[in-house]
Amino acid sequence: MSESQTVAKPTPALADVQNERDERNVRIDKVGVKDIRYPILVKDRTGGPQSTVGNVNMYVDLPHHFKGTHMSRFLEVLNHYEGAMSVEKLPELLAQMQGRLNAATAHFEVAFTYFMKKRAPVTGAEALMPYEVTFDAAAGAKKDFVLSVVVPVTTLCPCSKEISARGAHNQRGMVSVSVRFRDLVWIEEIVELVEAAASCDLYPILKRNDEKWVTEKAYDNPRFVEDMVREVTLRLRGHEKIEWFQVHVENHESIHAHNAYAFVEEWVDRGEN
Amino acid sequence: MSESQTVAKPTPALADVQNERDERNVRIDKVGVKDIRYPILVKDRTGGPQSTVGNVNMYVDLPHHFKGTHMSRFLEVLNHYEGAMSVEKLPELLAQMQGRLNAATAHFEVAFTYFMKKRAPVTGAEALMPYEVTFDAAAGAKKDFVLSVVVPVTTLCPCSKEISARGAHNQRGMVSVSVRFRDLVWIEEIVELVEAAASCDLYPILKRNDEKWVTEKAYDNPRFVEDMVREVTLRLRGHEKIEWFQVHVENHESIHAHNAYAFVEEWVDRGEN
Amino acid sequence: MSESQTVAKPTPALADVQNERDERNVRIDKVGVKDIRYPILVKDRTGGPQSTVGNVNMYVDLPHHFKGTHMSRFLEVLNHYEGAMSVEKLPELLAQMQGRLNAATAHFEVAFTYFMKKRAPVTGAEALMPYEVTFDAAAGAKKDFVLSVVVPVTTLCPCSKEISARGAHNQRGMVSVSVRFRDLVWIEEIVELVEAAASCDLYPILKRNDEKWVTEKAYDNPRFVEDMVREVTLRLRGHEKIEWFQVHVENHESIHAHNAYAFVEEWVDRGEN
Amino acid sequence: MSESQTVAKPTPALADVQNERDERNVRIDKVGVKDIRYPILVKDRTGGPQSTVGNVNMYVDLPHHFKGTHMSRFLEVLNHYEGAMSVEKLPELLAQMQGRLNAATAHFEVAFTYFMKKRAPVTGAEALMPYEVTFDAAAGAKKDFVLSVVVPVTTLCPCSKEISARGAHNQRGMVSVSVRFRDLVWIEEIVELVEAAASCDLYPILKRNDEKWVTEKAYDNPRFVEDMVREVTLRLRGHEKIEWFQVHVENHESIHAHNAYAFVEEWVDRGEN
Repeated sequence: MSESQTVAKPTPALADVQNERDERNVRIDKVGVKDIRYPILVKDRTGGPQSTVGNVNMYVDLPHHFKGTHMSRFLEVLNHYEGAMSVEKLPELLAQMQGRLNAATAHFEVAFTYFMKKRAPVTGAEALMPYEVTFDAAAGAKKDFVLSVVVPVTTLCPCSKEISARGAHNQRGMVSVSVRFRDLVWIEEIVELVEAAASCDLYPILKRNDEKWVTEKAYDNPRFVEDMVREVTLRLRGHEKIEWFQVHVENHESIHAHNAYAFVEEWVDRGEN
Repeated sequence: MSESQTVAKPTPALADVQNERDERNVRIDKVGVKDIRYPILVKDRTGGPQSTVGNVNMYVDLPHHFKGTHMSRFLEVLNHYEGAMSVEKLPELLAQMQGRLNAATAHFEVAFTYFMKKRAPVTGAEALMPYEVTFDAAAGAKKDFVLSVVVPVTTLCPCSKEISARGAHNQRGMVSVSVRFRDLVWIEEIVELVEAAASCDLYPILKRNDEKWVTEKAYDNPRFVEDMVREVTLRLRGHEKIEWFQVHVENHESIHAHNAYAFVEEWVDRGEN
Repeated sequence: MSESQTVAKPTPALADVQNERDERNVRIDKVGVKDIRYPILVKDRTGGPQSTVGNVNMYVDLPHHFKGTHMSRFLEVLNHYEGAMSVEKLPELLAQMQGRLNAATAHFEVAFTYFMKKRAPVTGAEALMPYEVTFDAAAGAKKDFVLSVVVPVTTLCPCSKEISARGAHNQRGMVSVSVRFRDLVWIEEIVELVEAAASCDLYPILKRNDEKWVTEKAYDNPRFVEDMVREVTLRLRGHEKIEWFQVHVENHESIHAHNAYAFVEEWVDRGEN
Repeated sequence: MSESQTVAKPTPALADVQNERDERNVRIDKVGVKDIRYPILVKDRTGGPQSTVGNVNMYVDLPHHFKGTHMSRFLEVLNHYEGAMSVEKLPELLAQMQGRLNAATAHFEVAFTYFMKKRAPVTGAEALMPYEVTFDAAAGAKKDFVLSVVVPVTTLCPCSKEISARGAHNQRGMVSVSVRFRDLVWIEEIVELVEAAASCDLYPILKRNDEKWVTEKAYDNPRFVEDMVREVTLRLRGHEKIEWFQVHVENHESIHAHNAYAFVEEWVDRGEN
């Protein structure tokens, strides 16, 4: 699955099977390469670039009359950005994919761990918190950009608190937010918005005074999985740049071996027409 | 996250926090329990029940004015079918979920390994082949049923065969098919349809004469990832009971560390109106 | 990778590459097949067989002078037990592997989900709890049997409880126990022993009165990850049939994105010599 | 699970539960923090630092008379190296862990994706290949360092080639090598050693002339899983700096849904005494 090429010592022209005509009349929505590990740079809100490792998928559409695409060209496009592939360059990268692959639509997906400095609430002890982020971008005939961020939080059960003489069960919950927006929304904005909606947010370092603070904060702010999904929904509705969102909340219940789950999807009606 | 209950020694009535009124005006699309491991029975095409283990998700919708759902009732419904939960009972199970949870829509998803006896092509040596299957069912306001089957196959590269003096790279490919249908389509039908479209299908046991047979068959039937997705598409279009389908093909390329991928989604136009 | 076979229509004798002599002087510790999904039966303490799905690995050793093993024979041995492969038959199965593969040592590993009925502590509501179990068996020159069980539990932090004015952080913890024993130890014994050592055990169904009970029990029995590993260690030392054990405890901390972990390994000195 | 600390506004001294005396007489082999995502720098053979993301575990031993360790100190040690944590600093980092945690032995494990530039064999087209690498280091009472590298390769079946009239099945195989050494062995050395032992190595970019070359090379160098493990073993024995090794080979068979597997472990006898 590669293409004809004349660098180095060419053998007599090799057949280009991919370029043959296809008669089966099946248009392919997406064809390309998947699960490429590649170093990437992501610019954070303060302007600094952050080095991380991406898991990359690159696809194009294929009209029904072409037999195949040229897989090696995806890697050539990706490699062109080696050492400096940043998200600002996604439109350019998608345009290159369209051009090199002769495609109406190009898709680029990348998943990576993103780090934010976080200070403990009382002592101010600082370290890095990891968040799993995905960009899902398309350009050409179908334009799209979806930003997804997974934010781990503490959730404390209101029912358990209400009915128990002491304590309340709590656990790590995973809040996954996907958004489409009219103007750039930073990863940091999604993280802050979700953390503000939780019983408490998580920290990389907590000293004893901090641990007292987070324990009491969570106890004072109980949240069902239903509350979490609603509180995040309200904040996403209130973010003026966001046009569409999905929120998945999954609590790793400390009293069960299974999880509690809630999901909301909405197009935000800005009432502008 | 459980409900009031009077079996055994009840304490004085405990507050029912979930039943309180919610004023945030956020309707929840899905709320419930996720990743429950549970034994299930699946009926195969020959009528025999097959014991396997399911990974189960159960959700309902929640109108905006209810604060919470009652998580324990999902497990009670599931447990009601213990030892004999079969797919034929899905409509009844969904109706019970709607009733017990007072919901407009109920969702039941279950993923499991399904086994089919498979005979080696020459020697007839027989053993079980595993296939990963998912049912995604909804009833009530939103009715739906999607059957998904993952079929592993051999794919052999036509370009590699064409340009090389000897041999051709080949690999395991994973074909994931999802279908919506008008009349019941068996898991076995999807498996057979996909295996017929591949360079060669996989077997649990191959003796030497069988290995010669599958090696030569794959060499004689080269398939790009594009060919696989198209050949499966043609067969799904030709299956009169199928109304909608998705096909994902992912080849674990033997010459790369990344995968080749192709995807088609279609509503089948039966031209009946 | 299969063997000569004369059922059905044999082609003229095919070369048996695996049987050739190898001159590289490298003995192979384990060679065979890995990640076979297969239905299995496991007998529980009450005598009833339980249907589940195993992930199976089968290996033998290979002396330095043999070029290869015969992979298809592993599947033939496994298939011989189709529909009725139980753990009581492991010695017989290992002996068959040794015989068919001409091996000094045979290894059989199987991982599966095991279910136990569990009643809620107050209301008695009953459903199935899943536990992940592994058997790692060897026979021949190297005899061995290791039983491993993963038991999810609640752990509540003693420090958080002690220093906070209200509440205490708690979470799901995963306790993995591996044992070697002189007389059969049931999976149920390991589960009960671990659950007794936790802040509280987990349940498939909890009604409101049950939820109050487990919340208060966990609050009254705080456990660091260090306490969990020690409490389980004491109980394993006190189980007269156990000769060796490992305990891994991993708490999915509700206040951090990372986990707390503790590990102990011991040969139990029974002071009998 | 944190420690007393006086930065910012201290509350009246909080109880230090972890420092209490423990009377259960259970020494803990390893206790600490697990699955911390953190950015790291790794120096490659050419001297350049490479930015990647680590999955970090940090443990110490805990004598039987201490109730608990101080979890926050692990993160403080890790954070001290933020932005510049390289493997050369592992001895210093381990010494800090011992000091801060008052421990006889400290363990540091980190897993990350490592990238190497790789040129296509004919056209010279260049891009990055990813390899999964783990360092498992211990210092203090128990000193140790194990380097593990996973190298994906092509394996082509000798039996299939021998008995078939045309073609031969081949697939992606994963070779995992762990080594202990007397003098530093570079990741690059392990990668090159394994790739030289395979039917063919993998490439990020292959143009058509390259694809012809790798197809024919694999066909000309058939390898059973047994051959792979032996060829790697011979090369590790022949590497004068290596004292101990493990080799796992797992072929994702293109003709089966399960894998072929082989394993060798050896202490290398240098015959120096």
